[in-house]
Amino acid sequence: MSRFFSSKFDALTPYTPGEQPKILNLIKLNTNESPFPPSKKAVKAAAEAAELLQLYSDPTASVLTAKMAEVLGVEPEQVLMTNGSDEILNFAFMAYCDEKTPVVFPDITYGFYPVFAQLYNLNYEEIPLDENFRIRVSDYVGINKTVFIANPNAPTGICLKLSEIEEIVKSNPDNVVVIDEAYVDFGGESAVCLIKKYDNLLVTGTFSKSRSMAGARLGFGVASEAIIQDLNTIKYSTNPYNINRMTMAAGIGALEDEEYTKTNCRTVCQNREYTVTELKKLGFEMTDSTANFIFAKHPSVSGEEIYTKLREKSILVRHFTAPRICEYNRITVGTKAQMDRLICAVTEILEER
Amino acid sequence: MSRFFSSKFDALTPYTPGEQPKILNLIKLNTNESPFPPSKKAVKAAAEAAELLQLYSDPTASVLTAKMAEVLGVEPEQVLMTNGSDEILNFAFMAYCDEKTPVVFPDITYGFYPVFAQLYNLNYEEIPLDENFRIRVSDYVGINKTVFIANPNAPTGICLKLSEIEEIVKSNPDNVVVIDEAYVDFGGESAVCLIKKYDNLLVTGTFSKSRSMAGARLGFGVASEAIIQDLNTIKYSTNPYNINRMTMAAGIGALEDEEYTKTNCRTVCQNREYTVTELKKLGFEMTDSTANFIFAKHPSVSGEEIYTKLREKSILVRHFTAPRICEYNRITVGTKAQMDRLICAVTEILEER
Repeated sequence: MSRFFSSKFDALTPYTPGEQPKILNLIKLNTNESPFPPSKKAVKAAAEAAELLQLYSDPTASVLTAKMAEVLGVEPEQVLMTNGSDEILNFAFMAYCDEKTPVVFPDITYGFYPVFAQLYNLNYEEIPLDENFRIRVSDYVGINKTVFIANPNAPTGICLKLSEIEEIVKSNPDNVVVIDEAYVDFGGESAVCLIKKYDNLLVTGTFSKSRSMAGARLGFGVASEAIIQDLNTIKYSTNPYNINRMTMAAGIGALEDEEYTKTNCRTVCQNREYTVTELKKLGFEMTDSTANFIFAKHPSVSGEEIYTKLREKSILVRHFTAPRICEYNRITVGTKAQMDRLICAVTEILEER
Repeated sequence: MSRFFSSKFDALTPYTPGEQPKILNLIKLNTNESPFPPSKKAVKAAAEAAELLQLYSDPTASVLTAKMAEVLGVEPEQVLMTNGSDEILNFAFMAYCDEKTPVVFPDITYGFYPVFAQLYNLNYEEIPLDENFRIRVSDYVGINKTVFIANPNAPTGICLKLSEIEEIVKSNPDNVVVIDEAYVDFGGESAVCLIKKYDNLLVTGTFSKSRSMAGARLGFGVASEAIIQDLNTIKYSTNPYNINRMTMAAGIGALEDEEYTKTNCRTVCQNREYTVTELKKLGFEMTDSTANFIFAKHPSVSGEEIYTKLREKSILVRHFTAPRICEYNRITVGTKAQMDRLICAVTEILEER
């Protein structure tokens, strides 16, 4: 830290991204990436866009936004595309939280929410999940604060029903409720259909998971036109050309290939159910995940030991150190072959004890 | 605006990007893009990177950062790569300005500085350029505030000497001085060589102009290791994966092709001198630009009229409406053929009167 750094960041602990190691033949199940390559249409479009890099990208991202709106069944004015979904979350924290408007989110959720809250010196509360790692809807009903909920939640994978989301949105009419749907395409119910009914709902999404584009950095927000206007005000006051030409082109390509995305999502869901079944046979306890990851612990082996021994076998999963979840590992669902290697490695670890 | 939008943004007017019109056969001289395509190495690397979009990009951008450091002659720990140079400027406003630390910049400069200052509700002062649109160095000596100076300045193109920059940096030892070198490669002197000597200097740069990569969104900051640490704290608290895989690869490709960049810069400088000479013959008055644009007015035709009539002839330049500069147009220096078309069009406009 330099001696010039603003003291307003004294209490700030930045986000720690999942490790991106350079180990050969690693099975990388730690950052919930897709095991499938991006759509060929996305790759081709990106490569073509690279030829014209001397020209600025369209700051309105008009073609991509229109295509996204079409796929979501909303109007283009109800969509904002961003440089990853972290950017839309950042914009939402800026726009809808301040010293008069506190913010709440679960105690166990996407680790970036408390970072944003600290960054902007917000009054924030982390509401404990229940003993089964479930969000208690009643905790959020009429709470009268800005709400951030990941649905499905991470790292638990558990999702709320659409009717539960609606209850939270409806009961907080004077506050924005942000539903972060990074993992919705693997079995959750999207709340996008509610944006016409509630002017306080912002749904965020990403191309990183179901659309195999984590490396492209493309996220989005869907909300009432007025909320999208607010978020555009923030965008045009921080980084108007937030999305580069290649990502913009790749995004359009991916949206023109929704069948490919749907097929991949179905495969991930099948592989998840297969892995859950196999891990249960080995004694693992798991939350009921509707995401592209599994959140698992073993009654007789610590979370850290499983993490470490898997790593020794060139399988990387995500281990957290927070007290309530330190016995768990979050395991990204990969290909069937990767899941078989995982199950095999876990079997060995249990046998070696 | 929604009824939820934080009142802290009441006085905020977002930045207005230069127009990106969809006019056929347009000669686009309004956003200071390079008239040359990106390096073939950059294009090839970007296309290859698109094949692996399912994986997150390296949040540390280690290979790109090391290569950038090598080209600049500094250590990798003294460099931070960002999603365009607007992002590094945003980080600097966040890190080094607050209610206790006001910020100053010229009244005529990059239009984003006042937007950042408004966004963060900063106490800011716009120091007038002198009557010849020059920065008066004495205005900034020992000012004891955070300083942002674009060098060369925009839209004037005028640059300060390295010794003048050093005087400002040296005389403000307790404040960060940001030198925004977006246009330095067209004849200015970079202050990067001063970062080893002064721990309060942050130099920012971009791949948008000299490296023909405006559409890739790649910027950077160079400073003491401590300042880079601060800015990384902001990065990891806003958007850790700020640079996508394709841009990262393209950036490395461009840096492996510095001869191409240098050749293009030389050509732009030659075309600038040619255009200046020809416009002078037509009666234009211009600042002494060391950037890839010309800032010109005509004693007998208004800036707006020239802008409008050029547009009718499918030539787009940038016209500003601020009182001190409304008679001027900022004209990007393009290829020789584009400059000939510009000169021809201007000649016609003057003859038609």
